[in-house]
Amino acid sequence: MRIACIVGTVIATMKDERLRGRKLLLAREADLSGKPNGGLFVAVDTVDAGKGDLVVVTEGSGARETDFTLGLPVDAVIVAVIDSLETGGEVTFRKS
Amino acid sequence: MRIACIVGTVIATMKDERLRGRKLLLAREADLSGKPNGGLFVAVDTVDAGKGDLVVVTEGSGARETDFTLGLPVDAVIVAVIDSLETGGEVTFRKS
Amino acid sequence: MRIACIVGTVIATMKDERLRGRKLLLAREADLSGKPNGGLFVAVDTVDAGKGDLVVVTEGSGARETDFTLGLPVDAVIVAVIDSLETGGEVTFRKS
Amino acid sequence: MRIACIVGTVIATMKDERLRGRKLLLAREADLSGKPNGGLFVAVDTVDAGKGDLVVVTEGSGARETDFTLGLPVDAVIVAVIDSLETGGEVTFRKS
Amino acid sequence: MRIACIVGTVIATMKDERLRGRKLLLAREADLSGKPNGGLFVAVDTVDAGKGDLVVVTEGSGARETDFTLGLPVDAVIVAVIDSLETGGEVTFRKS
Repeated sequence: MRIACIVGTVIATMKDERLRGRKLLLAREADLSGKPNGGLFVAVDTVDAGKGDLVVVTEGSGARETDFTLGLPVDAVIVAVIDSLETGGEVTFRKS
Repeated sequence: MRIACIVGTVIATMKDERLRGRKLLLAREADLSGKPNGGLFVAVDTVDAGKGDLVVVTEGSGARETDFTLGLPVDAVIVAVIDSLETGGEVTFRKS
Repeated sequence: MRIACIVGTVIATMKDERLRGRKLLLAREADLSGKPNGGLFVAVDTVDAGKGDLVVVTEGSGARETDFTLGLPVDAVIVAVIDSLETGGEVTFRKS
Repeated sequence: MRIACIVGTVIATMKDERLRGRKLLLAREADLSGKPNGGLFVAVDTVDAGKGDLVVVTEGSGARETDFTLGLPVDAVIVAVIDSLETGGEVTFRKS
Repeated sequence: MRIACIVGTVIATMKDERLRGRKLLLAREADLSGKPNGGLFVAVDTVDAGKGDLVVVTEGSGARETDFTLGLPVDAVIVAVIDSLETGGEVTFRKS
């Protein structure tokens, strides 16, 4: 899974009917300190993530293995909001 | 999912029979302002997208989770035409 | 899907039995003018593509959604031979 | 599959309910000597891997082909802890 | 599919039980002349490939469409040992 930072939202009226009512968030891959350092992509939210949150994103067919995304035409879903990242005995990110 | 800009069309007579009558669009990954900045690829249209539109593209097996693409040999489908992108409280793209 | 140019063939005697009799082609990703500009990969042919052809390649599980590739251990299939590419009102590639 | 080094852990309270009780580890792709040299990602552990271990990671739908990950919204799972890597007649990595 | 060169082996005692008895090989993507020029990865062997062999590797869910890998937590399988590569009328690689 990818670590990503939520940076915005996508507004779209014309969309596949299965996506109606779904929140499409803009995300960027992030590093161990939670700073965006990678590519931009769109993910469906299932855990009430908000702007600025550092999240775990599942991609591919696994993105449809949640109660909220089964059978949807999506390839990326937010499965967790990160409280903290620990590496080498140090906390490199903590949710504020 | 990817944010992409529709830049053209693919014309092909010799193709898999399941693709007959399907619109194959040329797309390029785009940034938050809607400008193409990434790789070229081909996506099937399901939401009546046109040239110049900024769209959301679903890839992989999820591309076949729409009523129009079930069972087709495709790996990328346009699932939404973007009205606007918002990030950090600003609108970085608005459909003209 | 990817746009690719057929650049050669793979000859292999020792192979998975499900691949016996299948034509394995060498391909390179190509740009809007049909010139190879990307990575090398191998794709199964289903539409009688030949050397020099510009083609559309479907990857992942979608590569097995044709009558010829169902249940095969493949991840890339040629689904169309491109006649022309049009972008911005211009024809950037035409099959010769 | 990828060779990766376990570099830390992800702590998350708000997460998809199917991920409750699952250990989410931070990993980085590694080279033949076991040194991290690539991108950061998150993987689910199934083989009791720990920090500093060099592991084999399976991605995509294959990540759900274990007894512990069936039906989970994950796209990367640790399937082996590496004892040693051998290349060209030399051992380039040995677990300490 | 990818063209890759077998460069070594992975030894692992602690692994998913479905991988017991499976040969895990180290591979590197290769160019038209068979020289390794790309990323390192691990693939399961099904065609008795050995060190130095140039092979075709299928990735993703297609890696489990062989009699030997059905239901295994793998994402890359060797499906062919390459005898020769031909491009532009020339043989660029021949198995020695």
